[in-house]
Amino acid sequence: MRAALALARRGLGNAWPNPAVGCVLVRNGQVVGRGWTQPGGRPHAETEALRRAGSRARGATAYVTLEPCSHHGRTPPCCNALAEAGVARVVMAMRDPDARVNGRGLAMLRDAGIVVEEGLLEREARALNAGFFRRIQSGLPVVTLKLATTLDGRIATAAGESRWITGPEARREVHAMRARHDAVLVGSGTALADDPDLTCRIPGMERVPMLRVVADARLRTPVTAGLVRTARIAPTSIVTAPGHPPAALAPFIAAGVEVMTAPAAEAGLDLAALLAALARRGVTRVLAEGGAGMAAALLRAGLVDRLAWFHAAGVMGAEGRPAAEGLHLAALAAMPRFRRVALRALGADVLTEFERIEEVPPCSPGS
Amino acid sequence: MRAALALARRGLGNAWPNPAVGCVLVRNGQVVGRGWTQPGGRPHAETEALRRAGSRARGATAYVTLEPCSHHGRTPPCCNALAEAGVARVVMAMRDPDARVNGRGLAMLRDAGIVVEEGLLEREARALNAGFFRRIQSGLPVVTLKLATTLDGRIATAAGESRWITGPEARREVHAMRARHDAVLVGSGTALADDPDLTCRIPGMERVPMLRVVADARLRTPVTAGLVRTARIAPTSIVTAPGHPPAALAPFIAAGVEVMTAPAAEAGLDLAALLAALARRGVTRVLAEGGAGMAAALLRAGLVDRLAWFHAAGVMGAEGRPAAEGLHLAALAAMPRFRRVALRALGADVLTEFERIEEVPPCSPGS
Repeated sequence: MRAALALARRGLGNAWPNPAVGCVLVRNGQVVGRGWTQPGGRPHAETEALRRAGSRARGATAYVTLEPCSHHGRTPPCCNALAEAGVARVVMAMRDPDARVNGRGLAMLRDAGIVVEEGLLEREARALNAGFFRRIQSGLPVVTLKLATTLDGRIATAAGESRWITGPEARREVHAMRARHDAVLVGSGTALADDPDLTCRIPGMERVPMLRVVADARLRTPVTAGLVRTARIAPTSIVTAPGHPPAALAPFIAAGVEVMTAPAAEAGLDLAALLAALARRGVTRVLAEGGAGMAAALLRAGLVDRLAWFHAAGVMGAEGRPAAEGLHLAALAAMPRFRRVALRALGADVLTEFERIEEVPPCSPGS
Repeated sequence: MRAALALARRGLGNAWPNPAVGCVLVRNGQVVGRGWTQPGGRPHAETEALRRAGSRARGATAYVTLEPCSHHGRTPPCCNALAEAGVARVVMAMRDPDARVNGRGLAMLRDAGIVVEEGLLEREARALNAGFFRRIQSGLPVVTLKLATTLDGRIATAAGESRWITGPEARREVHAMRARHDAVLVGSGTALADDPDLTCRIPGMERVPMLRVVADARLRTPVTAGLVRTARIAPTSIVTAPGHPPAALAPFIAAGVEVMTAPAAEAGLDLAALLAALARRGVTRVLAEGGAGMAAALLRAGLVDRLAWFHAAGVMGAEGRPAAEGLHLAALAAMPRFRRVALRALGADVLTEFERIEEVPPCSPGS
């Protein structure tokens, strides 16, 4: 199952809207087939593993990180394929929370005479596809907020200079992060100031499915921006407030940009609504890359599930531009705090990764 | 020699104004005596090791982290003591740059018929007593700037609340840092806002020699401050600008505070002059603990040799108080950058330690 989870990980960031699944077929102690969800979500991991195993799948055990599908979608259900190939036993890490499957796959396999076990490394499997499960269960993607700052939390000099605060190792890691996410989100301020391309430029990892999203309530992004000009090569969405005249939207649509709307909020867009719109579009994992307005808005709304903070080994002082705008904290106790899950040096910089501290349900009376 | 260096380290922060030295006496492969510089700088490491070895020092090899002293100070020279005890061989990590010794100890030992070797683990020995050597060579102590901030570099909320941003493990480490330094330095703003006691409260490490120093150009520290009230228990200095009337200084002197002066500068005191005054007072290692004005002034003046940065796992946003006031950077390239030498997790917090990036001398023409 560990091998299946490692295979599944390869699909993160390009399996969406499907979950990233891994499958390993074992017969007589030998691996006879391996597969993982292919870009765009098809073929499924099981189909890939069965194709590679061929006739050696007969009598084999299939280790899959998620319950095999039981419904006819764009392809016939994997449960049928496993049964037809003569697989004798299926070990699954967890059931699929998708209402169309959720236990039906398990039942279908058992009806076909296959031995089914569940729950092996379930915690790991659940963490791997947290974005998919979040989307299914709450209609929102998992959001990673990425920030790259000086030790004193500055993202640019007073004059706006920010290239480069962090070094090449950290920038490379950002590109790898983009590849593991379904969508990269920036505010229009960042699109205007930095004109970023938000692509993954690591050789062998330049993947197409990643969506680039600009949150731009006032439609300030210039049609000449790099993101707009490359929209036919790398999918790009601009999310704006309702009410812009069609003539204002036309040049973006003509350039191949997908224009979406979300309700406006205090200082921009309602980010929860924006994220829900992305989830409806199939997005399960969002990497938010700034700037300070977006970082503060996500933190204030409690929408940050994961935090990836790159600290460069320099100090800029109070004139530098802050990483996050004001959070309006009433007291220190109200400060958003996170649980550290990883810490590592990347060249001269340090990357610390955090997760949301899950709220502990209040104790029931008497406990 | 590694054992001798480990012994020497015990003296850091309480051997000043003397260097922290370690000595191990070995005879026939057996350790017969160990010693390190005692609080206040006396007795010396060699004296301690010889006392413990007694007659077993005859024919032994002495491993010392610094050249034994050759001059009569408050005690007779260690070179004499080593010769009188019948030590056969002395291995020293490095010569003493103090003009009163520098090679004289080595010569005195050889004249007494002792075999002398030098240079074993010299780099480590030099790093250990960097503060002592800096003071001897440039008249300044080594300065460690310590900061404890949120991920976005804030040291307090807009309302000034700062207890506690970091957790108990980080605070304990700060106390241990204080014990390894000769003096702890704060600005009067910190003395006013936090009324800190700046002591080491780790059981077994509550050491007296540490000097507490307040940089206070305008003499704003109240006579009721904790630092003033405890001046008879833990030595305390206030460094102020010249020209205050004697009546203003009298209550501090009456409370046991040592009042020193340093020239005033733009927004406070000339910190290089303040540090030079501390060096004349015997201080070799200073821990600067803030606040934002002092941090910025030290960074602007290039006076930060070491940086110890505690990052708590929280984000405060732009309304929080910055770690360092403006550095007036003309460009990103002018930002002070440091070389990371240590990285570790301390409970929920992360401590990253840095050293000054030594300037590389320009290449000579043709090289």
